[in-house]
Amino acid sequence: MLSKTYTKYIQSLHHKKFRDAEDVFIAEGSKVVMELLQSLVFSCEQIVGLDNWLGQNEAIIRKYYAGPLQVVEEFELEKVSTLSTPNQVLAIFKKLPKATIAAKGKVSLALDTIQDPGNLGTIIRIADWFGIQSIICSEHCADMYNAKVVQSTMGSLGRVRIEYTNLLKWLKRNDTIKIYAAALNGKTVSDLKGLTEGIIVIGNESKGISEEIMELCTERITIPKTGAAESLNAAVATGIILSHI
Amino acid sequence: MLSKTYTKYIQSLHHKKFRDAEDVFIAEGSKVVMELLQSLVFSCEQIVGLDNWLGQNEAIIRKYYAGPLQVVEEFELEKVSTLSTPNQVLAIFKKLPKATIAAKGKVSLALDTIQDPGNLGTIIRIADWFGIQSIICSEHCADMYNAKVVQSTMGSLGRVRIEYTNLLKWLKRNDTIKIYAAALNGKTVSDLKGLTEGIIVIGNESKGISEEIMELCTERITIPKTGAAESLNAAVATGIILSHI
Repeated sequence: MLSKTYTKYIQSLHHKKFRDAEDVFIAEGSKVVMELLQSLVFSCEQIVGLDNWLGQNEAIIRKYYAGPLQVVEEFELEKVSTLSTPNQVLAIFKKLPKATIAAKGKVSLALDTIQDPGNLGTIIRIADWFGIQSIICSEHCADMYNAKVVQSTMGSLGRVRIEYTNLLKWLKRNDTIKIYAAALNGKTVSDLKGLTEGIIVIGNESKGISEEIMELCTERITIPKTGAAESLNAAVATGIILSHI
Repeated sequence: MLSKTYTKYIQSLHHKKFRDAEDVFIAEGSKVVMELLQSLVFSCEQIVGLDNWLGQNEAIIRKYYAGPLQVVEEFELEKVSTLSTPNQVLAIFKKLPKATIAAKGKVSLALDTIQDPGNLGTIIRIADWFGIQSIICSEHCADMYNAKVVQSTMGSLGRVRIEYTNLLKWLKRNDTIKIYAAALNGKTVSDLKGLTEGIIVIGNESKGISEEIMELCTERITIPKTGAAESLNAAVATGIILSHI
């Protein structure tokens, strides 16, 4: 049984303002919760689950987590869930300390105002697939701790370092490293083959890369088009670019 | 001013059953509506828009469409819209006659139960980008005329032929053509370079390709992974595969 106060507390975490104040975030669903627990990257503060689910998973959970397990009814889980169809369990994890990313000697992604949480989560998952360990997000990107982002990373959140910062300033500080803009009318993406150091900038879903950031880019790279579509989804473009490196 | 009956009619088209019965579908938003009008592929039956928007676009619209233009207030558009934030205009288009796709001499996509409308729309847009003109959907794929699909195709719907059919039977009929399964543990995707004839099968978001369809596939192709993520989003995987052809 969830207390009124705790119900309100979890509901407040649906909003960035309260996640920031409390320094925690919500993860939901069996798969995501178990992956984050097992990653040992995030410290868990609370697990709220259906009796059935907790019974089935308690043995594994206890290998990774010694804190409280709260049994709830389905209607209670519905009240605190961020999903339209809640999925058996919800957990509250501590956010990571702010990351600081250096671009030297590796390939990093820089996201210029990726606003759709689903896109951001998918991009984090793609980075994890291709072994890219650093993502720099401009301040107007979706929040990496937004429930939809956490959901769509499918557990990759603990394996990729993500820094939120003033992207323009960050790029200026890293001006000895090549910066590649994902854009129209550039070199073909297959030219990136074998790249071991560089920053790949992905622009906003509808506006692309902002002008001042584009000015800092040393090269434009393009996904060759043979058909007629005007653009590709930002996450799809990221996947294609990384697959050619 | 929208009549009660017409309001109910548009609302009914949010559901596949009524779209099928009436043989029409809804497109929303300035960009998508204008692209579908200008494609000259779909015949438009009705345009319902805000006064302001119609005023600005009537001249262009009239080059492509001679039918009724219905001026509505914002609250009326909200009532009939499929979007949480309606975008100035909604149009009703006639569906296309059922397509029949032959696989000979080209590269086609076959989708085995792609259920998320956003994924299906994104895949259609990717196909359009890479000049793939044929998509075969299994019967349990999302409906191509679902409002979210139409939205996320961003106007590509008129440039790609899409057939809904029993995928297993269709593949059996095309057994002289190579069938590539997007799967784990296969040949690397770069082996597809230069492919001019073949069927590429993309599986369900969580279950992958069904067993009986996998048995018909002549080769498995894989996107090489250097990181730890368990899977890639179906649309992202499609984009990566097509970019390597």
